[in-house]
Amino acid sequence: MTVQQPIAVLGGGSFGTAIANLLAENGNPVRQWMRDPEQAEAIRTNRENPRYLKGVKIHPNVEAVTDLADTLIACELIFVALPSSALRSVLQPFADVLAGKLLVSLTKGIEAQTFKLMSQIIEEIAPQARIGVLSGPNLAKEIAAHELTATVVASEDDELCQRVQAALHGRTFRVYASGDRFGVELGGALKNVYAIIAGMAAALEMGENTKSMLITRALAEMTRFAVKLGANPMTFLGLAGVGDLIVTCSSPKSRNFQVGYALGEGLSLEEAVTRLGEVAEGVNTLKVLKVKSEQLQTYMPLVMGLHAILFEGRTLAQVIERLMLAEPKTDVDFISTTGF
Amino acid sequence: MTVQQPIAVLGGGSFGTAIANLLAENGNPVRQWMRDPEQAEAIRTNRENPRYLKGVKIHPNVEAVTDLADTLIACELIFVALPSSALRSVLQPFADVLAGKLLVSLTKGIEAQTFKLMSQIIEEIAPQARIGVLSGPNLAKEIAAHELTATVVASEDDELCQRVQAALHGRTFRVYASGDRFGVELGGALKNVYAIIAGMAAALEMGENTKSMLITRALAEMTRFAVKLGANPMTFLGLAGVGDLIVTCSSPKSRNFQVGYALGEGLSLEEAVTRLGEVAEGVNTLKVLKVKSEQLQTYMPLVMGLHAILFEGRTLAQVIERLMLAEPKTDVDFISTTGF
Repeated sequence: MTVQQPIAVLGGGSFGTAIANLLAENGNPVRQWMRDPEQAEAIRTNRENPRYLKGVKIHPNVEAVTDLADTLIACELIFVALPSSALRSVLQPFADVLAGKLLVSLTKGIEAQTFKLMSQIIEEIAPQARIGVLSGPNLAKEIAAHELTATVVASEDDELCQRVQAALHGRTFRVYASGDRFGVELGGALKNVYAIIAGMAAALEMGENTKSMLITRALAEMTRFAVKLGANPMTFLGLAGVGDLIVTCSSPKSRNFQVGYALGEGLSLEEAVTRLGEVAEGVNTLKVLKVKSEQLQTYMPLVMGLHAILFEGRTLAQVIERLMLAEPKTDVDFISTTGF
Repeated sequence: MTVQQPIAVLGGGSFGTAIANLLAENGNPVRQWMRDPEQAEAIRTNRENPRYLKGVKIHPNVEAVTDLADTLIACELIFVALPSSALRSVLQPFADVLAGKLLVSLTKGIEAQTFKLMSQIIEEIAPQARIGVLSGPNLAKEIAAHELTATVVASEDDELCQRVQAALHGRTFRVYASGDRFGVELGGALKNVYAIIAGMAAALEMGENTKSMLITRALAEMTRFAVKLGANPMTFLGLAGVGDLIVTCSSPKSRNFQVGYALGEGLSLEEAVTRLGEVAEGVNTLKVLKVKSEQLQTYMPLVMGLHAILFEGRTLAQVIERLMLAEPKTDVDFISTTGF
């Protein structure tokens, strides 16, 4: 049934490309939309994405396209892998085409002014669409290399989850379903902040005990925060919670980790951003999170500590000192001061 | 108050030695008991443990002793860091001296016939003692090197927890309290099995996506199992659960990891044990766990899969194939089939 109908992937980045290839390998015709005609032309000619996932062959079933209206009209199932900064502006003009479509966001981020997650922005633009998210411990390069990978599709819409499973599930890529769209998506957005901290710890050559303590604290505070906003705490014991957190905090290649690494070496945020050539998503998320956690009066010592280093002129040593001394002394508090 | 009364550490291994040093640095006189007079003599002479934590200076406050009765009588607070195989036989003859003492087990393991954890064995031997456990993401070498480390002391006895915190808490070693002794101790015992699997994954050069998927699954099944036995699921979101699991699965130096690594290279269990010179704790735990999970009818696919490889002649490829195909398809099932 879905074999003949094309599936759309919006975005020409590494995650979108990896997912487009998986869909194609499963026998689905895929239209991968990208803004840049040169990039699309390069894919058509060389069967390789010129910028991302170099060395990975693009499957013949993937057609690189540049006409967005056309793509959205032709496809019912649409994976959205646009940059978080572009998602709203790219989709808004086509709002009326999106009614009834199945839109699955792969993009992680929180919109600064509205505190909306990406799927919530899509929902706002296209209230008549059926909406889901995909998130988990998923490095695009490893997906493309067919390393065994598991992910979560989350939506209130069971049939959407099943459609995504049917299209994506394969021998090396396992797709689990969840009804907690908000929790799954929030996990994917929050982890970027903790990847910065993991990068700092790596630059400081902190040991495994410390790294593990930081990840555990990170998990505790992101769970606490998410539960306060209505997510299911069990989501954070799963692939899109602790799973994604572990992979993100262990992967030196993410921009977030690299910003943290530069900070750990003693660079200022400005210097770190200059070295990287762009701002990492986690830096934006951090600012938004600081404000929101204060509004909600949720205890987030890692977020507060990192914010103090990046924007309040504190040193790393001061923040660590404070973290080590000011922490509540029971393991239950460690996990939750709100007692979920 | 506790400054002048000596504190006992039983066992001359690396974890016992690291804890003895921490206690000593905090100003406590420490009697570290070990069976071997030559080892004790070496410590007295060279201020270094001849077998473990080489290069680490033993603090002057640590006295290496070999008279167990004497040590138990002189001390009220006693840390038990004996090998799991020796704990029962070493303590049994001194049962009557232990009444009223504060006994804190650092040893991880499950007794094969009885399914008792170490603190439960101590409880059986000395029902009049006050009992606790210490567990967390704690590599002894890193503790000794003063890497920032957090741990959990768990006991139903609040005052015991506070005594341990007062004695051990320091600038680089943070001690959190928990009332869930069983859950904290079980986490420490179960993780050894998953360290074997992590070792196998490393030998097979599996990627970060796969490693993270395995850790997440491991956390799910150990939580499921522990909850069935009465532990608090939240314990597994904390230091003694996911924290210890992460550090154990990331540390190539543990015997469990090394056995797994050898298996991943294609060696049989017998060959792996020969290479290592001893059986890893996780192998014993695995056998016990298989039996118990069948009794309880708890779904533990990683335990079953590893057991099939080690004792039922299955290949790793067969087990991975089955794991990837037979898994339930919702993320909630992934976390819990019993619905805690």
